[in-house]
Amino acid sequence: MDPIGTYDYTTEAYSLDFMRRLPLPTLGNYLLDAATRHAEERGAGYTVMERRGTAWVLSRLAIEVIDADGLAAPIRVSTWAEAMERIFIKRCFEVTSAATDKPLAYARSIWAAIDKNTRRPTSLAGAWPDRMMVPGRHCPVEIAGRIAAAEAAPDDAPDTRTVRYSDLDINGHLNSIKHMEAMLDGFDLETYRKASVQHFEISYHAEGRYGTQLARFRRTLSPGTFACALVDGDRAISRALIRFV
Amino acid sequence: MDPIGTYDYTTEAYSLDFMRRLPLPTLGNYLLDAATRHAEERGAGYTVMERRGTAWVLSRLAIEVIDADGLAAPIRVSTWAEAMERIFIKRCFEVTSAATDKPLAYARSIWAAIDKNTRRPTSLAGAWPDRMMVPGRHCPVEIAGRIAAAEAAPDDAPDTRTVRYSDLDINGHLNSIKHMEAMLDGFDLETYRKASVQHFEISYHAEGRYGTQLARFRRTLSPGTFACALVDGDRAISRALIRFV
Repeated sequence: MDPIGTYDYTTEAYSLDFMRRLPLPTLGNYLLDAATRHAEERGAGYTVMERRGTAWVLSRLAIEVIDADGLAAPIRVSTWAEAMERIFIKRCFEVTSAATDKPLAYARSIWAAIDKNTRRPTSLAGAWPDRMMVPGRHCPVEIAGRIAAAEAAPDDAPDTRTVRYSDLDINGHLNSIKHMEAMLDGFDLETYRKASVQHFEISYHAEGRYGTQLARFRRTLSPGTFACALVDGDRAISRALIRFV
Repeated sequence: MDPIGTYDYTTEAYSLDFMRRLPLPTLGNYLLDAATRHAEERGAGYTVMERRGTAWVLSRLAIEVIDADGLAAPIRVSTWAEAMERIFIKRCFEVTSAATDKPLAYARSIWAAIDKNTRRPTSLAGAWPDRMMVPGRHCPVEIAGRIAAAEAAPDDAPDTRTVRYSDLDINGHLNSIKHMEAMLDGFDLETYRKASVQHFEISYHAEGRYGTQLARFRRTLSPGTFACALVDGDRAISRALIRFV
């Protein structure tokens, strides 16, 4: 079986944002869907993982947008594993125009397989990575070493957001896509009118629990580049780095 | 061309809710997607409507769930127009199991075609309804005459929710699916643990504008049956009727 999986997605007009662009969380959803289908087809899907008492957990995701307008038309997502590092697997994505094959975006992600009882990472020793791995294939997007703590020097007082039923994933925690939405909601419409997101990167640190009030902090790192954080009490549950162009 | 359009959807595990059920807003998204594709294939899609200076607007949606567990597996959505009433078109949906053809849910919806400049309904005279219409086909779900005003006698003080970037649709207003999420967020996890939504009905009255703080009211009509309202200032922008079993 081809170690690269390729899947098509079309965003209908009613799901575009007010600038007629593909909302980045929707693109994130397509990436997660492609990753899930790719893993399932190669014997490392949800059911197999669950039978082993394990689950995939997304740890980092970085997206580099090449052509924001092109993403609003039918797209093709290719995904493959790039490297396995003891307890992490790195997965890459290339997003192209379904009509022209032109590259529109790239993404890189880091996943851990955790033990469902202890919630700790488990070894990835096993056959799957070989079925998915294409080391060295072109994927021009970097994951930063560490994202600056927005809450240490925020631009303003934080907004708040309570974790509700519709935010929850199958584990009862704030869905990874909802983290993305919350980060992007830290910017006003003027920002989205004048610019679009070129680089979006998120790191997940802890579970967003039901009923907690999360504080969203934003910090300008340089013109157009921001660090964001979702904070529960005194702990950041996720951090993001967002660059507009 | 068959007046009935049929489309397949699969919800991956990571998109199920904490009870491993298909979230109702996700089902709503599938219904809107099926409606969009059905209309496009029959010459009444977004581009054609826009060329005429018009757009489809969802006015009412009622969903009746027959088998909540079945919806978590691959499903098939069939849709057709049932009736045309001067400025409204009624569209029905049947949701079946892709594996067994067993009915899992039904939905009925009411749409208006509005003039994009005046925002007022325009006549639906034209050829499309004939290409989509199947009057009298079985669709066991009712749309209530009028949903009780939750804010007139609420159970408690309302929650609030501010309309942010990620809530907006292509017109810059609160997305119809986000209305559904907001309504369902008025219930706690205990409710979803003990019961599941059997009937969900929503009526859209006004646009949810960016930056406004919406109040969410809930009113118990009878045990397990609730009216909800999203209120901007002194005006309900949408109302819902939700029945749990």
